[in-house]
Amino acid sequence: MKKLINDPDDVVRDSLRGLAAAHPDLLRVSFDPIYVVRADAPLPGKVGVLSGGGSGHEPMHGGFVGRGMLDAACPGQVFTSPTPDQIDAATRAIDGGAGVLHIVKNYTGDIMNFEMAAELCQASGIEVRAVVIDDDVAVQNSLYTAGRRGVGLTVLAEKLAGAAAARGCDLTSLEALCRRVNANGRSMGMALTSCTVPAAGKPTFALGEEEMELGIGIHGEPGRKRVPLRPAREIAQHLTSAVVSDLPFRSGDTAIVMVNGMGGTPLLELYLVYNEVASILRGEGIEPARRLVGNYITSLDMAGCSVTLLRADAEMLSLWDDPVLTPGLRWGI
Amino acid sequence: MKKLINDPDDVVRDSLRGLAAAHPDLLRVSFDPIYVVRADAPLPGKVGVLSGGGSGHEPMHGGFVGRGMLDAACPGQVFTSPTPDQIDAATRAIDGGAGVLHIVKNYTGDIMNFEMAAELCQASGIEVRAVVIDDDVAVQNSLYTAGRRGVGLTVLAEKLAGAAAARGCDLTSLEALCRRVNANGRSMGMALTSCTVPAAGKPTFALGEEEMELGIGIHGEPGRKRVPLRPAREIAQHLTSAVVSDLPFRSGDTAIVMVNGMGGTPLLELYLVYNEVASILRGEGIEPARRLVGNYITSLDMAGCSVTLLRADAEMLSLWDDPVLTPGLRWGI
Repeated sequence: MKKLINDPDDVVRDSLRGLAAAHPDLLRVSFDPIYVVRADAPLPGKVGVLSGGGSGHEPMHGGFVGRGMLDAACPGQVFTSPTPDQIDAATRAIDGGAGVLHIVKNYTGDIMNFEMAAELCQASGIEVRAVVIDDDVAVQNSLYTAGRRGVGLTVLAEKLAGAAAARGCDLTSLEALCRRVNANGRSMGMALTSCTVPAAGKPTFALGEEEMELGIGIHGEPGRKRVPLRPAREIAQHLTSAVVSDLPFRSGDTAIVMVNGMGGTPLLELYLVYNEVASILRGEGIEPARRLVGNYITSLDMAGCSVTLLRADAEMLSLWDDPVLTPGLRWGI
Repeated sequence: MKKLINDPDDVVRDSLRGLAAAHPDLLRVSFDPIYVVRADAPLPGKVGVLSGGGSGHEPMHGGFVGRGMLDAACPGQVFTSPTPDQIDAATRAIDGGAGVLHIVKNYTGDIMNFEMAAELCQASGIEVRAVVIDDDVAVQNSLYTAGRRGVGLTVLAEKLAGAAAARGCDLTSLEALCRRVNANGRSMGMALTSCTVPAAGKPTFALGEEEMELGIGIHGEPGRKRVPLRPAREIAQHLTSAVVSDLPFRSGDTAIVMVNGMGGTPLLELYLVYNEVASILRGEGIEPARRLVGNYITSLDMAGCSVTLLRADAEMLSLWDDPVLTPGLRWGI
C-alpha cells in the first residue's frame, strides 16, 4: 500500500488536524467526539446545515464547512458511518435556535445513525429534519444500501441548502428545497482502478489492465458491469445517457453539471471528460448553465470519474451563485 | 495505460476544449496556435503576466488564467515546451501597452523558446521581461535542466505577480518582485509512483511496491535517492528540512506554504502531510502564515507530493490576500 500516511489507524485524525491547521479562519475540529464546525458557530437565528458520512471522500464533507455551505460535518472512519454521538454533538454545536437540517447519503449505516442522533437532539429540544440523498442511477440496492446510493448530488445539495440557510430560509422550506434537489438530480460513476482502504492495506477489488467498472459506488461497491476500457468519449456518453434518461431530463432543461474525479484522476482528464459531457448535453438540448470540474466526492485513491446532473430552476441557479467560502468550494467572497 | 482520454495525440486539445467550455466567464482558448487567455484581454495600461510550459501539470498554467493571476498561458504538448509562435501570439493578445512579464520554469527547452518568443515580441514593439523560476532544491542540473528545476514556487510567483499587475505595478517593478519571490522560495517533491505520458503509454520509470523517490522532478526526472517507503511524518521531515536548510529559512520567518499533490494523491493524504509540515515549521519558529493544500502543479497521474516554502515579506502577504478568480485558484471575488 503506497500512501502518505502514518499509522493506518490515525489517518482520519491526522488529516483533520491538517484541515484545522490549514483553515483556522473557516473552521474548527473537535476530536472528542470528532466533528468539523464552522469557526463562528452557532449563528443565532440561522438554520444549521450538517452532513456527514465515512471519510475517504475528501473534500466532502469536512472540506465543505465554512460560510454559505455546511455549518458542521461528521466524518466517520474511512468508509464507515459517523456515530450518533458525533452527530448529536455537532448538531448541538451549530444550533442557533432555528433548527438543524441533516443531509444524509443513502447508506444503511448512515441512515440508522443519523436517525438515532436526531432522536437525541430532539430530546434535548433541537428541531431536526433529515433529507436523504439517493441519486446514483447505477443500481437499485447495493452492498451497503437499500434503494439507490447517495453520491455526487450531495455536493450540490450541500451548496444549495447552505446558500438558502445563509439567506435566512426556515427549516421547513430548507427541507423542501433539499428534497426538490434530490428529486431533480441524478449521478453515475465509473472506475479505472480500485481504491485501497488504509486499514485493509490492499485494493478493495481487482480490475484487469484493460478493464473498467461502470456504475461503481464511492466505496468500491460493484456497479452495473465490468467492460473493456473505452475512449473517454464513449465513457462520457454511457454515463451521461444513463443519467439523462433516468429522470428523464428533457430538451430545454437547464442543468448544474458536475464532472467529479474519484481521487486518483488528474484534472487534465476531468476537463477532457467535461468537454465530452457538455457536448452530449448540448446535443440533447440541455444547457449546462453551471458546472464543477474537479475532485469533490472522492473514493480515496481510485482513478475514475462520475457525472452528476441537476435540473435547476431559477431559485437553484440563484442559490448556486451565492457566495461560498469553504476549503473545498469558494466563490463570491 | 488507464486514462480518461480519446486519442493520445489529442489529449491537450481535448482537455483545453473542456477548460474553455467550463469557464467561458474567465477565459478563452485559441487553438491555432494554442494558448489560454483571459476573457477580457488585453487590459489597456496593465502589464500582462504570462506563463507556460508543458501540459500535464494542471491546473498549472491554463487553470491560473483569469482575474488577479495570469493573463495568458501557453500549454505545450505533455511535458513538452510551448513553441515560440504560441508564446508570441499569446503575448500579443494580452499586451495592453505596458509590456508583458514572462514567468518561465527553468527547463532548457522552455528557456530557449521563451527567449526566441521575447525577441519576436520585442521586434513588434512589445516590451517583454522574463523571470526564471528555479526553486527545486533536490538536484543541481537534471534531465532537462541546467541548474535547478522550476517547480512549485511557480504557482506562488504567478499569484503574487498577477496581484501586483492588477494593482497597476509597472513592468520593471513587477520583474523585481518576481525575482525577489524566486530568491526567497524553495521546493522539493517526492513520488510514490511514476506517471504515464499518454503518448508513451507506459510508466516513465519503475518504483518497487515498497519504494519511493525523494527529490523527484515534475516530469519524473530522477531525484536525490530511491529509498524504502516511510511514514508521512518522516517524508514531511525530509522534504521540509531540505527546503528550510537551503535558503536558509530562519526562526522568526513568516512563510507562504504549499503542500502540493502530484495528481494521483487524494486530499485526505495532502492534509495529513500539511499537518506534519506545519508542525515541523512551528518547531523551527517559522510561521506558516498562508497556505495552499491541494493539487496545483501536478505530474499527470503520479502519486506523491511536494513542499514549497516562500519567505514572505509584508508586501508578498498583502499581494497574496488580494482577490484572485481563476479555475484553479480563487478567493476574495
